[in-house]
Formats: sequence, C-alpha cells, structure tokens
Amino acid sequence: MKIIHSIQELREWRKNAGSVAFVPTMGNLHEGHLALVREAKKHADQVVVSIFVNRLQFGQGEDFDKYPRTLQQDVDKLKGEGVAVVFVPDEQELYPRVQQQYNVEPPNLQNELCGAFRPGHFRGVATVVTKLFNIVQADVACFGKKDYQQLTIIQGMVDDLNMNIRIVPVDTGRAADGLALSSRNQYLSAEERAEAPRLYRELSQMAQAIQDGNVNYAELEQAAKQRLRDAGWVVDYIEVRHAGNLQVAHAGDKHVVIVAAARLGNTRLIDNIEVHL
Amino acid sequence: MKIIHSIQELREWRKNAGSVAFVPTMGNLHEGHLALVREAKKHADQVVVSIFVNRLQFGQGEDFDKYPRTLQQDVDKLKGEGVAVVFVPDEQELYPRVQQQYNVEPPNLQNELCGAFRPGHFRGVATVVTKLFNIVQADVACFGKKDYQQLTIIQGMVDDLNMNIRIVPVDTGRAADGLALSSRNQYLSAEERAEAPRLYRELSQMAQAIQDGNVNYAELEQAAKQRLRDAGWVVDYIEVRHAGNLQVAHAGDKHVVIVAAARLGNTRLIDNIEVHL
Repeated sequence: MKIIHSIQELREWRKNAGSVAFVPTMGNLHEGHLALVREAKKHADQVVVSIFVNRLQFGQGEDFDKYPRTLQQDVDKLKGEGVAVVFVPDEQELYPRVQQQYNVEPPNLQNELCGAFRPGHFRGVATVVTKLFNIVQADVACFGKKDYQQLTIIQGMVDDLNMNIRIVPVDTGRAADGLALSSRNQYLSAEERAEAPRLYRELSQMAQAIQDGNVNYAELEQAAKQRLRDAGWVVDYIEVRHAGNLQVAHAGDKHVVIVAAARLGNTRLIDNIEVHL
Repeated sequence: MKIIHSIQELREWRKNAGSVAFVPTMGNLHEGHLALVREAKKHADQVVVSIFVNRLQFGQGEDFDKYPRTLQQDVDKLKGEGVAVVFVPDEQELYPRVQQQYNVEPPNLQNELCGAFRPGHFRGVATVVTKLFNIVQADVACFGKKDYQQLTIIQGMVDDLNMNIRIVPVDTGRAADGLALSSRNQYLSAEERAEAPRLYRELSQMAQAIQDGNVNYAELEQAAKQRLRDAGWVVDYIEVRHAGNLQVAHAGDKHVVIVAAARLGNTRLIDNIEVHL
C-alpha cells in the first residue's frame, strides 16, 4: 500500500494502474468507511482511498479545526483491506492559491435540508470532489448513503457535467443499536451516546408507517420532531423526499427517503431511511 | 473522418484512440479554426473537433438564434485536415434536462472586460468546456488567443480544478489588413468591413508606444478609445492588463496584453495584442 502525497506522483502511478475505484474520505476511518473500501474492491483492479479534511466544506463556527485527524490509525486500518494507494494531499497541494478560484455550483438543492444549515457546504463538497475526480481519474467512486444529500448532489453533478465516472452508493453502516456510524459520534458524551439511537428509531417508525400506507408525510414529520424535542434534541429537519432527486415527496411516489438532521448537545447527527413502496 | 453525434459513441471511440488533441468550436469555421486544428495535430495521435453552438454562453438579446450554422461547409473544410472525429452533439444530447443544473463558476474575472457586457457568458463557457472535456477526455486542447479572456479563464479553470488536460494557446489568425478572423465578421457591411481593421491598428499603435517605454496606460487607453469613437465605433473597453491572469497591469509588468472590444453598427468585435517588455 503506497502513501502518496503529491498530485504529480498520483498521476504517474495512475498511468499504469488499470481500472481504479475511488473512496474519498476525510479520514478518521470507521467500519462505515471500510465497507466503502470493500465495495470499491468489487468494481476495479485497484482501490484508491483519499484522506483530506476539506476546509472548503466547513462553514464558520463548524468543526474544521477540531475535526479528528488520525492518519496513522487510518493507514493501519486500511492495511488489511487490499488498498493500492492512500492519497493524502496537504492543503498547499490541493489549494495552492489559498483561495479556490473556480467552484462547481450545485443547483438550489444545495440550499435545502443540510444546506439550509450549512451555507456553502455542498459547493465545497462538489468542488473538492471534482478536483479529486480529476486527479485520481477513477472509473468508479463509492459514496455512503449516510450522507444522502451529498450522494444525490455528487450523482447529479456527475450526470450533469458528463463526468466519466460511475457512482456506487453504499448502505449506511450502523452500530448494533442502530446508530449510523459517523466520525462525529465520538463527540458524544456517554449519556448522549445512549440517547443517540433514538434518531434512527424515529426514522424506522416513520418508514414503517409509510410502508403501511400513511401518506400524511407532514403529520409524520411533525410527530417525530416533537418526540425528539421532548427527548432533548434540537431538530434541524425531518423530511420525506423523493429518493432519486430529493425533491419534496408526494403521495404516490414509489421511492422515498426520510432524511433527518438533529443535534444532541453540540453534536449534529444525520441519518436517513429509504422506503420502496 | 467520423461524424459523431452521441456522447456514448464518442466515449466508445475514445477507448482505443491513443492520445487526443481537442479543438472545441461553435462551427462556422474559418482559417483561424483551421490553424487550431493544425496546431492540435502536432500534439497527439488524433484530433477531435467539436461543433456546438452553446446556448448557455449567449445572453438575452445576443445572437444565439442568428449565429451562423454551416455544418456541411464546416465538415468539408475539415476533410483535408486530418481530423479523426467531428463531434456534433445536439442540444438534447448536451442539455438533456433543458436547464443545466451544475455550473462551473469562475472567479470575478468573469464579470470584468467582456464579462461586464455579457453577464453569465464565461460561466456558460466554463461549464460547456468542462462538459466537453469530460466527454472527449483529450490530452491537449487548443484555444485561440483571439478570445484572450476565454483562454485565461479556461487555463485558470484547468489549473484550479486539477483538470487532466494541457491547454495550448494559438495565435490569432488575421486577414491581410490585420482584422482578426471571426465568425462575426460576416455580419459587417462592406463599409463596416473596410473600417474594421482600425481596431487592430489602434492596438498595434498602443503596443508600439508601450514597447517604446510609455507606461501611462490610462492615457493610451483613453486616446485609442477617442480615436475609435471619432471613427464611429462604440467602445466597450480598451485596457492594458497583466498577460498571465488579466489583472490590471502596472508599470513594471514584463508581459502585458492590450485587450479591446468595440462595436461597429450591430457587430461586436474583440481583439488583443500581447506585449513582452
């Protein structure tokens, strides 16, 4: 497994690499990331994992500075996984002009759901992913469904800008109690960690109700929000959306996704469940 | 020479094409385009020319509808030039959702010079060029220096988004009297055509003055504008800029470019001259 820091060295390696599957990450790897890597291996000769905490997708007052950087542990975790290259550019390598000058601007979906609470976040994601795609030149890239809006925006960007790469969505990894795996879970106190699975339980209940034929999405959303608030959460949103494009869902849609973001103390958790009707 | 209309067919062809040099055009080809093609041939095994009149880079009230479409003549002109593929997508092929959803947003340079008179133009250029680059997957692309601001923005975009392509700038083709070759020249009446070379003459005089040591750029600009106005032109701008990035030039800069846009009747002409000091 090669650790590559420079774009030029990665490009050199790429020339003779055969087909490549790519897993972009911000490091602090957990089982969810390893599931992405294992899926990636099925789709190409070689797997490239990038580790880069992308300043561009953090807003003011967000956790860019305290975001956990654990490179040695990350590399150790990847060692048994058959990864060919770990690409670890520093900020100077990806942002040599300090300020990114050219950005990929997603449509208005970037301002909804998580975007309403994180202005500029999805522009930053779309831009860094474009840069990484252009550098790695992979045939396939794996993204987790846990960041469902991110996945939707990346897939939309690939389609709309005719990027020559296939996006493979990967199911959310979960703890035994249902909590979606996330680097941010480690910010939770013991008490918060015990409370955290409630988010997934509420989404599961909503999914069951929808599966059972309830199409009063607004009422379901309100009830779930209220129960979370009663348990001490601050709810950013819980919404039923059309699964393909994250437009507002309507009764009759055959494939919806319930997306949610809510805060426990200082920690913001997101999760979602798809429902096929 | 293959004429390819579909993205999928072009991607198939690309797989076994060796190295590729790309010349994106809006058709209505003249000697200036053929010079791009001849330059392209020096840089790769195969040359791909695209012909697509890109609605996205035309503003309201601009000449999108009347822009000359001359596919058969264009194809005939390319036949003797050793071009492998002419890529001619229709609008449905490049913009299947009607509205482009994801755009490449250039920095503020897009609002200066020509951008001040053509809002959204350079976003439209950057976006369609990104799409075409992603489709053609060329190693090299040739752009004319005649559209100097476009060239600067494309080069900046390639650098900043880490696109895996090399941009080759090609000198402006000119008529015997100095007029820069342009599809829009055919909009000129006989009288306007006779007057049109004045733009290049004025730029040439400015270049000579700067070469001779005159660093009072503002005064040179004003004088040239006034002479054009006296001859019946409407001047959008004449400016001395830093050649590399089109920032405002300062005395002491070693490589400047004089860029200009001015209108004769309904026809807007642009031109420029680089000066190495």
